[in-house]
Amino acid sequence: MGTVRETIDFPQDQRAFLQPYLPTEQNSSSPRPFVTLTYAASLDSQIASAPGARTALSGPESKAMTHYLRFKHDAILIGVGTAVADDPALNCRLGDIQSVDEQPRPIILDPSGRWKFSADSHVIRLAKEGLGKAPFVLTRATQPPAEMVALLSEIGGKFIKISGTVLERGFTWEKVFNALEHEGIKSVMIEGGGRVINSLLKPENKALVDCVIVTIAPTWLGTGGVVVSPDRQFHNGQVLPAPRLRDTIWHPLGEDVVLCGRLASQSKS
Amino acid sequence: MGTVRETIDFPQDQRAFLQPYLPTEQNSSSPRPFVTLTYAASLDSQIASAPGARTALSGPESKAMTHYLRFKHDAILIGVGTAVADDPALNCRLGDIQSVDEQPRPIILDPSGRWKFSADSHVIRLAKEGLGKAPFVLTRATQPPAEMVALLSEIGGKFIKISGTVLERGFTWEKVFNALEHEGIKSVMIEGGGRVINSLLKPENKALVDCVIVTIAPTWLGTGGVVVSPDRQFHNGQVLPAPRLRDTIWHPLGEDVVLCGRLASQSKS
Ligand SMILES: NC(=O)c1ccc[n+]([C@@H]2O[C@H](COP(=O)([O-])OP(=O)(O)OC[C@H]3O[C@@H](n4cnc5c(N)ncnc54)[C@H](OP(=O)(O)O)[C@@H]3O)[C@@H](O)[C@H]2O)c1
Ligand SMILES: NC(=O)c1ccc[n+]([C@@H]2O[C@H](COP(=O)([O-])OP(=O)(O)OC[C@H]3O[C@@H](n4cnc5c(N)ncnc54)[C@H](OP(=O)(O)O)[C@@H]3O)[C@@H](O)[C@H]2O)c1
Repeated sequence: MGTVRETIDFPQDQRAFLQPYLPTEQNSSSPRPFVTLTYAASLDSQIASAPGARTALSGPESKAMTHYLRFKHDAILIGVGTAVADDPALNCRLGDIQSVDEQPRPIILDPSGRWKFSADSHVIRLAKEGLGKAPFVLTRATQPPAEMVALLSEIGGKFIKISGTVLERGFTWEKVFNALEHEGIKSVMIEGGGRVINSLLKPENKALVDCVIVTIAPTWLGTGGVVVSPDRQFHNGQVLPAPRLRDTIWHPLGEDVVLCGRLASQSKS
Repeated sequence: MGTVRETIDFPQDQRAFLQPYLPTEQNSSSPRPFVTLTYAASLDSQIASAPGARTALSGPESKAMTHYLRFKHDAILIGVGTAVADDPALNCRLGDIQSVDEQPRPIILDPSGRWKFSADSHVIRLAKEGLGKAPFVLTRATQPPAEMVALLSEIGGKFIKISGTVLERGFTWEKVFNALEHEGIKSVMIEGGGRVINSLLKPENKALVDCVIVTIAPTWLGTGGVVVSPDRQFHNGQVLPAPRLRDTIWHPLGEDVVLCGRLASQSKS
């Protein structure tokens, strides 16, 4: 049952291009966490070939980069759709990691308790084995199931209540980032899935995102998958301008390309 | 009414990366034309913000590249949707062009005569002024409107009949390429729009495409535009593999990236 500790290498000389886009000590004086939005997509902007299907899109070099990015953030955040579909590990398997303290904190947005985790869930097992931190699960439930509360508390995780009614779908991002700030989390890497990403790309939310790092693989998945494309927003009958990245670089990595850029029009202070 | 002859420069040192993907004399011994599929898309794989809306997506450097590619092909092909939506010029405005003989031939796929061109249409005007070749319009009509036939023949263009009933939508690509071959066209650059591209990316057609050149701009357009994403194809209940490019390079150009690759699994002989 034990997980073999395989480590991943992301060579030093490949790290340089990412530096301007990473959270720094300086950012960490800001009240809100530094937010990096990141995903791996096909040419047709799909992050999975079907809802609920784990899809290998990017090559080994891009995957190593993802682990380096995890290493550089205090937390990794995903929506419950991804937690349920992928049973993800959400830890960093980079050789650089010396102790579990350096692992990012997994954050799962699960307003209405759809994630039925158990001792067998990947992220729980890894936390038990000291190979990752235990998750913080953001919920609207006042009383989450007692056995889940116990399971989390055993390994140092917990539920965090976000105000709102259980019937509402989706947390407001301000509340999410405030909750993270309250936990002392100074940087968060948002890894997906589709709904979470599309929500952050909406005009009203994009000011909350500091950096975006997108990996694109040279393949089309074809219609029917999970698409990253924000809903159009209208104001007085006009389409609000689509989000465009500033300060961009395109960095070929293996067979993929990595796009880094900034979204927020003003840097937060 | 005269069109000012503004020329575009695509610097020599930026041309090198494209060379392996361009049609060569060697290709031109093949019976079928060399086919390059090319388009400019947003991060969410849209080539226009709405059906029928001309959308400026790529930067000046990528646009210059498009004119260089036009210079390197015998013909440029578009679907009638694009002809109607964009009233495109379809000529090459690169400074390299010495005479109209070096211009690519515009090819419009218009099975059922939806393109109502006149002397004012951009491509017709340019041909009249010697700044572009006159179009060849592929049609299923046995007798296209006499005034259109006359307008085209005046400037050296024509209708070409492709067999099939007028009610069928979409020509078979074999018939299209055979017709081009018959006209002595040895290379064709397919520029869009959405339906044409998605049709060529289908598993049954991809063997007809030699090279693909995609420009991606660091912006999302948001749902509701013209999307490049081939329909999924199934065979015996299985999804056929999505097209993946081989021999790829990613070349940053201005704020965009240019992806070049090959699609056909075998080179045609
Ligand atoms: N290629 C990649 O980089 C990548 C990365 C991650 C995931 N994925 C793929 O993405 C797919 C899952 O995506 P998904 O869209 O189904 O689910 P998702 O984005 O992971 O989760 C969405 C759910 O999170 C909850 N949520 C809470 N606050 C939210 C907010 N502010 N905005 C949006 N959602 C919020 C909602 O739950 P309720 O509906 O219960 O309220 C929502 O339905 C999987 O197939 C996975 O493999 C791919
Ligand atoms: N960004 C870019 O690179 C770029 C480039 C070009 C165009 N565009 C945009 O694309 C949009 C137009 O796209 P669209 O999808 O509406 O039209 P389209 O692809 O330009 O034309 C499609 C039409 O071509 C005819 N056709 C004949 N044979 C075909 C075949 N084998 N496969 C597909 N079509 C065939 C059909 O006409 P019938 O229906 O009459 O049978 C079909 O409806 C415009 O908004 C334009 O601005 C963008």
